[in-house]
Amino acid sequence: MAITVVGSVAYDSIETPAGRRERCLGGAATHFALAASFFTDVRVIAVVGEDFGPEQEAVFHARNIDTRGIERAPGKSFFWEGSYLDNLNEAKTRQTDLNVFATFEPKIPDAYRDSEFLFLANIDPVLQRRVREAMPDVKLVAGDTMNYWIKDHKPALLEVLKGLDILLINDTEARMLAGNNNLVLAARGVMAMGPSSLVIKHGEYGASLFHKSDPKDKSAERRTFRAPALPLEEVVDPTGAGDSFAGGFFGYLASQPELTPAAYRAAMFYGSVMGSFAVERFGTERIAELSRKEIDARFLQFRELTHLD
Amino acid sequence: MAITVVGSVAYDSIETPAGRRERCLGGAATHFALAASFFTDVRVIAVVGEDFGPEQEAVFHARNIDTRGIERAPGKSFFWEGSYLDNLNEAKTRQTDLNVFATFEPKIPDAYRDSEFLFLANIDPVLQRRVREAMPDVKLVAGDTMNYWIKDHKPALLEVLKGLDILLINDTEARMLAGNNNLVLAARGVMAMGPSSLVIKHGEYGASLFHKSDPKDKSAERRTFRAPALPLEEVVDPTGAGDSFAGGFFGYLASQPELTPAAYRAAMFYGSVMGSFAVERFGTERIAELSRKEIDARFLQFRELTHLD
Repeated sequence: MAITVVGSVAYDSIETPAGRRERCLGGAATHFALAASFFTDVRVIAVVGEDFGPEQEAVFHARNIDTRGIERAPGKSFFWEGSYLDNLNEAKTRQTDLNVFATFEPKIPDAYRDSEFLFLANIDPVLQRRVREAMPDVKLVAGDTMNYWIKDHKPALLEVLKGLDILLINDTEARMLAGNNNLVLAARGVMAMGPSSLVIKHGEYGASLFHKSDPKDKSAERRTFRAPALPLEEVVDPTGAGDSFAGGFFGYLASQPELTPAAYRAAMFYGSVMGSFAVERFGTERIAELSRKEIDARFLQFRELTHLD
Repeated sequence: MAITVVGSVAYDSIETPAGRRERCLGGAATHFALAASFFTDVRVIAVVGEDFGPEQEAVFHARNIDTRGIERAPGKSFFWEGSYLDNLNEAKTRQTDLNVFATFEPKIPDAYRDSEFLFLANIDPVLQRRVREAMPDVKLVAGDTMNYWIKDHKPALLEVLKGLDILLINDTEARMLAGNNNLVLAARGVMAMGPSSLVIKHGEYGASLFHKSDPKDKSAERRTFRAPALPLEEVVDPTGAGDSFAGGFFGYLASQPELTPAAYRAAMFYGSVMGSFAVERFGTERIAELSRKEIDARFLQFRELTHLD
């Protein structure tokens, strides 16, 4: 089933201990769409400026991603500059230019209307909510956010959370959002805000999947699940790792005939798999040239890493 | 097969967000021995003072732990006071009184001589080395250490590492010991110092098992393994969690007829299981009253937490 994703398509300038890249293709929706495209049809809603050319568009088209919802606007594309020189786990933002995103009014192409899955990648919660409301009939909605929106735009974010089935955030964001340092209690607090499932990403330690407890369904199958991250000798560029995780996770779910507990567990593994590829090279370089065979081989590697037999 | 463990048997005064305990039974060898005693015979080498009474001894005997190697010396037992009020993941030491440990000369009772497994719990590496050299014929030697010895007693510690098959430390200690922030490279660096296997404990994120790569044995079975930690709603007292992990891990290994890769993987799970129990109550309270049935039930819970099917 097709996924529509709304989020940023951007240029990133990135500095890490492995080197530096100027204005490479980036943005949450870009990383998400590329990762999800290995599992299902993906359609993007975003806005870009006059600096977005055929070369960038070709990266999407090579993966059969529908870009009819990427609007061209006068001005420049969203630009972000960040450094991981001090800490590979957290980017230090040097510059953020919203540019064309400052006045973005998302429009849903008619061809996207039959999407059954919707992903609200990390952007202004006001935009996330608008897209959510314009697509009321989707089967499953997941979303991401970041510390900035939690801290300074909480009322708008809380409105978005009410309309989400699944939220994907990291430890720090979960603790901040719930105001609780204990991860289990923080997860429960976040799910009380709306989402019935919550993925908390632990960086190099993997990710956990929590489900809202259902008094009518106490079956063990709905229990918490932990997927590992791959121990890596080198992280070239962490940018987009979380979005690639989300793309693998949600893309795999959208490819499944039924959303069983087993499908959720495998989705967590595919999320970790896509995140592990994303960091191997700068920007979208690694995911853009990836093959399904490599994905399946790494999935087995994750299984060996965690399974008793 | 029997394990001999050398390490501290002590009194701990502990403050955590859950409360405070004065002078409860503690020490690395105590926590290790109690956890390992659910899997195999355990024999302790330590020294205690005149304040160590029948009540403390009874905790060991209730678990059939051999205490003939616990020497009584004039003076007071090792005492440690710590607080977890600021950070549940790391104790702030308020006071350490070595007392009788300051002049401890470990002696190996003859009845311990046929132990095939030796565990060097966290104490002065000079003492660890002395016990290691006094038991040259053991089949497998594992050990633990801490930041203090890494920082200020590195030459003595390096001598100990040469005689270890398995080292168990946490992330911070591994990075400090190897002088490398990347965990995979740090693991490789630490194993180059001696141990052929390395367990790195990630606190609430579980633990990883690394093996020295063997050019002659590239089989997938010797690959890195990750065991999760249990997501816990409340951590009452983290003291002894690492030693309990080590006890579950090494105790299980000692109970196995063969040290297969599968035995190592299950040992990682039993380590996590025992660590998860240890933190549920203060000091040794939880492990001392535990049953094998509870251990097996939690082992299955860890399996569900991580396995795809």
